[in-house]
Amino acid sequence: MTDKPLAAPRYDVAAIGNAIFDILAHVEDDFLVREKLAKGSMRLVDITESARLYNRIGQATRMSGGSAGNTAAAVASYGGRAAYIGKVADDENGRAYAHDMRGIGVFFDVAPLSSTQGIRTATSIILVTPDGERTMNTSLAACQELTKDDIDPDLIRDSAITYMEGYLWDPEKAKEAFRVAAQIAKSAGRKVALTLSDAFCVDRYRGDFLELIRSGQVDTLFANDHELRSLYETADLPTALDALAKDAQLGIVTLGEKGSITVSGSQRIEVGTPKVDDIIDLTGAGDVYAGGYLFGVANGMPLAACAELGHIAAAHVITQMGPRPQVSLRQLALDAGALAEG
Amino acid sequence: MTDKPLAAPRYDVAAIGNAIFDILAHVEDDFLVREKLAKGSMRLVDITESARLYNRIGQATRMSGGSAGNTAAAVASYGGRAAYIGKVADDENGRAYAHDMRGIGVFFDVAPLSSTQGIRTATSIILVTPDGERTMNTSLAACQELTKDDIDPDLIRDSAITYMEGYLWDPEKAKEAFRVAAQIAKSAGRKVALTLSDAFCVDRYRGDFLELIRSGQVDTLFANDHELRSLYETADLPTALDALAKDAQLGIVTLGEKGSITVSGSQRIEVGTPKVDDIIDLTGAGDVYAGGYLFGVANGMPLAACAELGHIAAAHVITQMGPRPQVSLRQLALDAGALAEG
Repeated sequence: MTDKPLAAPRYDVAAIGNAIFDILAHVEDDFLVREKLAKGSMRLVDITESARLYNRIGQATRMSGGSAGNTAAAVASYGGRAAYIGKVADDENGRAYAHDMRGIGVFFDVAPLSSTQGIRTATSIILVTPDGERTMNTSLAACQELTKDDIDPDLIRDSAITYMEGYLWDPEKAKEAFRVAAQIAKSAGRKVALTLSDAFCVDRYRGDFLELIRSGQVDTLFANDHELRSLYETADLPTALDALAKDAQLGIVTLGEKGSITVSGSQRIEVGTPKVDDIIDLTGAGDVYAGGYLFGVANGMPLAACAELGHIAAAHVITQMGPRPQVSLRQLALDAGALAEG
Repeated sequence: MTDKPLAAPRYDVAAIGNAIFDILAHVEDDFLVREKLAKGSMRLVDITESARLYNRIGQATRMSGGSAGNTAAAVASYGGRAAYIGKVADDENGRAYAHDMRGIGVFFDVAPLSSTQGIRTATSIILVTPDGERTMNTSLAACQELTKDDIDPDLIRDSAITYMEGYLWDPEKAKEAFRVAAQIAKSAGRKVALTLSDAFCVDRYRGDFLELIRSGQVDTLFANDHELRSLYETADLPTALDALAKDAQLGIVTLGEKGSITVSGSQRIEVGTPKVDDIIDLTGAGDVYAGGYLFGVANGMPLAACAELGHIAAAHVITQMGPRPQVSLRQLALDAGALAEG
């Protein structure tokens, strides 16, 4: 911690993650069975497997994605000041990704990987089943090249919250970028938030994630109930919540249609979700929930109000294909009385 | 007309049109006002204007489009046999376009324009306002290079219906391709259908379109009420319908949420639309209506049943961003009792 008084940050949230261009397609359940895919999971694939799968899907919808990228987009859609750090290549999908970030007002200034290197922008083939569940097949490609040199220290110091995704533990060099960013943020007296991303991801990196939280490198943790129970290797949610309360300054656990629980010391704040009649695609629900929540935190709102902003964002994004809000979340929240013009 | 008995066609519909990759974004009404755009229209733009506009929109959704391409996709989604003729470039959007066509089972075998020519796959920046209306800004690019050499005579002869969009009158060389295809189809005793595409398009080419219908090169005409009234330069729909009945063997006029009227000689068959609660994006509604209708015609269904298939397709596609059905229209129609397993 620094002794200097903190300057007001330029950004509410600096989000760091795998910059992924999403290719979404509806499939029937038996498609997942035939492909032996675990519904709801994220699987890493190489470009050969990605191409094979691509040739098996029908009509696709294409949209910028990436977990932390979606979170940054939600912060911006709430009228917040968001920045994003992630690696795309200098190809059509990479340019589309940069367009979408800047088009919604997210600061995004990471140099794209030169296309002469022959590595392409990461894609995820997202299979959406009739129940709205999404099964992701991600080719990390250019994301493998995110390094600590892509972390702009001034940007991190100038952000109230640095938010990172657990998926960053997959590409080798991004781990170091994560640790460097966390250290800069902490030294500047800022907050560092982590999302566990995926129960399988937790399984791969449980020890690292626990160490990040327990050492205080991460103070705020986002997880869904599966991920949290996986982290603490327990089937019992209350046990996991108690463990979380000890480890993290602030813990936020989403429970799907049952809402969410915020854990802060001995406090347990439960907030419900708006009712959604027709779920089309769950992709991005957790990501934009975190975006709404962090917008609230960065603006000093009470935690129950932060959770409500998260749920409004998630309830919107699941009514459409793709993970990014396409309408103003700020307007939705104003209409719902969850935010007031100020 | 040939004297030989007709062989059963391999395809229900061969659709010919401008192969366009859609870039869709929500905007507020005042965006259209500032940009001086006529809501609901299609405007041709050059690549400079396209790039300028692109930099002014936010989060985009990207999907294969093109009016006749959407129609072919709808025929395939009904389980029909569809083929498509349109020109893409050998770039990422062009490959995505070909993927989507083949992924849904549409035969698509037109050679892409070599990327060394520096001409890119056509795009349309589609601005979707809160009322669901779409305003299109199309850069024809590679579509300018569709010529009569791209028309496979066997394919046309082997299709029950050759369906073409009025928009083909915009790129110079496509007119000739259109006339050649119509002539091959007619000589083989097949049907030729035309959609008027857009009221401004009718304004540009009224004389040509009337001549195509009156000369019998086109026997089936699709139009919405604005386009039809523009064609016959009358404000009175019944007057326009009577003129249509004289000129075309079969006329199908869509009326938005009021349904559609099929005109066949002295017959006027009115069919209503299913109720849609939450219209997201009208892009493609007319295109997939035509696809459902033509699937019915090619399969010998009564005209009221054809119209119902059209409305089911349109009612689905307007509940999502983008012009292509992402679920099985066949299944939707089976569920609605508009189609039976046979």
